[in-house]
Amino acid sequence: MDTPGAVIQYVPRPGIVDLGWGHPLPALLPVEEWSAAGRTALREHGWQALTYGAAPGPRPLIEWLADHLGDGDHGSTRTSEIFVTNGASHGLALVADLLVDPGDVVLVDSPTYHLAFPTLRDRRAELVGVPTDGQGVHPARTAELLERLARDGRRVPMLYIVPTFANPTGRCLPHERRVELVGLARRAGLTIVEDDTYRELAYDGPAPPSLWSLAERGTVVRLGTFAKTVAPGLRLGWINADDGFVRRLTGLGYIHSGGGVNHTTALTMATFGTSGAYRRHVAAVRGHYAAQRDALLAGLRTSAPDLRISVPGGGWFLWAELPPPVTARSLAPVAEAHGVAYVEGRRFFADGAGGGGAVRLSFSMLPPGELQEAAARLGAAVDSARAR
Amino acid sequence: MDTPGAVIQYVPRPGIVDLGWGHPLPALLPVEEWSAAGRTALREHGWQALTYGAAPGPRPLIEWLADHLGDGDHGSTRTSEIFVTNGASHGLALVADLLVDPGDVVLVDSPTYHLAFPTLRDRRAELVGVPTDGQGVHPARTAELLERLARDGRRVPMLYIVPTFANPTGRCLPHERRVELVGLARRAGLTIVEDDTYRELAYDGPAPPSLWSLAERGTVVRLGTFAKTVAPGLRLGWINADDGFVRRLTGLGYIHSGGGVNHTTALTMATFGTSGAYRRHVAAVRGHYAAQRDALLAGLRTSAPDLRISVPGGGWFLWAELPPPVTARSLAPVAEAHGVAYVEGRRFFADGAGGGGAVRLSFSMLPPGELQEAAARLGAAVDSARAR
Repeated sequence: MDTPGAVIQYVPRPGIVDLGWGHPLPALLPVEEWSAAGRTALREHGWQALTYGAAPGPRPLIEWLADHLGDGDHGSTRTSEIFVTNGASHGLALVADLLVDPGDVVLVDSPTYHLAFPTLRDRRAELVGVPTDGQGVHPARTAELLERLARDGRRVPMLYIVPTFANPTGRCLPHERRVELVGLARRAGLTIVEDDTYRELAYDGPAPPSLWSLAERGTVVRLGTFAKTVAPGLRLGWINADDGFVRRLTGLGYIHSGGGVNHTTALTMATFGTSGAYRRHVAAVRGHYAAQRDALLAGLRTSAPDLRISVPGGGWFLWAELPPPVTARSLAPVAEAHGVAYVEGRRFFADGAGGGGAVRLSFSMLPPGELQEAAARLGAAVDSARAR
Repeated sequence: MDTPGAVIQYVPRPGIVDLGWGHPLPALLPVEEWSAAGRTALREHGWQALTYGAAPGPRPLIEWLADHLGDGDHGSTRTSEIFVTNGASHGLALVADLLVDPGDVVLVDSPTYHLAFPTLRDRRAELVGVPTDGQGVHPARTAELLERLARDGRRVPMLYIVPTFANPTGRCLPHERRVELVGLARRAGLTIVEDDTYRELAYDGPAPPSLWSLAERGTVVRLGTFAKTVAPGLRLGWINADDGFVRRLTGLGYIHSGGGVNHTTALTMATFGTSGAYRRHVAAVRGHYAAQRDALLAGLRTSAPDLRISVPGGGWFLWAELPPPVTARSLAPVAEAHGVAYVEGRRFFADGAGGGGAVRLSFSMLPPGELQEAAARLGAAVDSARAR
């Protein structure tokens, strides 16, 4: 997805209204507010903002995280249970470094965030999708899978899942399944890596309790990030884990050498948080993204009534099932010809076997008018594909 | 070295003048200038400074690096040969992820930067010190070592070295050895990972040409950082490598997912560079650190004339050999009682067997007056230890 010599990752494609990118709407990035927070943080912390930072992250950010994010639906978190990262992707890479040996099986939700796959495969894990149904991961059948893998002598150290406003489905795992899943993990000695990237972007009331909040310590490692709430270019996030796991993170050689992984930026975020700018900004973007969701949904209901779409209560994505015999792959060139693009559903399955009849539509990067135009083009493309 | 709940990594110890820390003098951190660069970068790049960045780093920083650092003694570098990192330690971790399999032998200079060891051992490498003499790594004997390891069936993918103003010795590998070493690596299929952290801090004329500049492409991967020249808390550096290696870095799963590893900070550094602030700042700190070096040297010549010290032409460290039978370990409690501290030399040897009679003295973090006081205390401690 990168052009050599580019400034940013996003590559615009003339004539295409692109629903493929899980990137923020440019107008919602807090340029002025972040600039002000940077000035304040440097004035307040002086040279301490620029020297080697404390390994788990600087105290002001950790305390703010524990106070302001660590309650309610996030789940109570002590300061010793926080490790500041370069974002959720970096968090996943670090956690996998600690948990996964080459040749291990790593369980992944089906479907789930597709770019977690190469990160896990870089650690030479074999990825196996968990059994699911329309509500998400199926705990009892996952228990059976774990028993089969154990009989085959396979080590299964972790399960990766985005249980809340999931990428790519927008779906939330139901409460009783959350409880069952953490119980299963506890019994099986399996660490659940809960990617909680979208929690703060809840549009229809509070998000469901995190797996982290439902589990005993030692069962869940939660990945948080400021990428969707504030700005992805900051490369700033955090891990919630039990004290012992945080100590293993701070004991990594490269952390010992370099100190906290994003110290200056972390202190700026602490200022952004304690000043109230975070709370104001997230409230504002939540409203905008909700309106973008609604615009895309309304457009699709009008222009593409044959798509089956579940309404997500938060996050950045719709998961659309196409009317058979149309597939994501057969539709792709037709959609391109109509000037609209998406990500094919099969990319979100570790074995590439599922999701052939589905697409992920992101409403995060486009304003409501363009989303309605995208819906019209997609509807016309589907009609055209069915008529062939 | 981290206190739970701390802001920064450094821990002051009352009553101790501490020569142990390789951290910058607080007064030399460019608080105002960095704040100004941050404002300018956000004004200039707007939302593009806050969204997902290009995987190898944003073009403005890469172009500035290629122009302003990639000539002279650094060695000419094309933009496609640069990958922006979170600093030299992160660079080493990434490079080792790509090169090292569990059980491999990694060669390391003897002595060399001690915190590279845990980073390499985290990849389950077995570390073997290269044969050295008073001038540094001995290429012919290293060739023999490689043959022995090959006969034993060991894979040896990389050698780690700080050849210029080394940590911990301050020493530069002589030119002819540089040429021999890159030739040997080329023939043996060994990648030299050249940690070039201290190159810009040259006090007595230009630094020697980098190994990167002397080698054919594909033999040397060079680690650069802004930690010593600008500020370590930024967690910003770069890797120089051939195009193919840079493509492997940009292809890592977590980079594909999150984009450039420190995008907003990288664009700020591009502004800091192109505005001329980098050049001015480095010229200024070079003068200050040279004066600190001279103050510690002068103090030691007066107060601790029995130490054998080679004068470093750059960097942050002196390597001092103690008068036998005094050892770094036996001196430590005496030095503490005299209110001075250092890092024991043996910590910089992978097998912990060398360096018992030497200490690393860092002059980076203290102003000249305190360095002279430290020298006086160390001299008194040595006298006291010898009299026992």
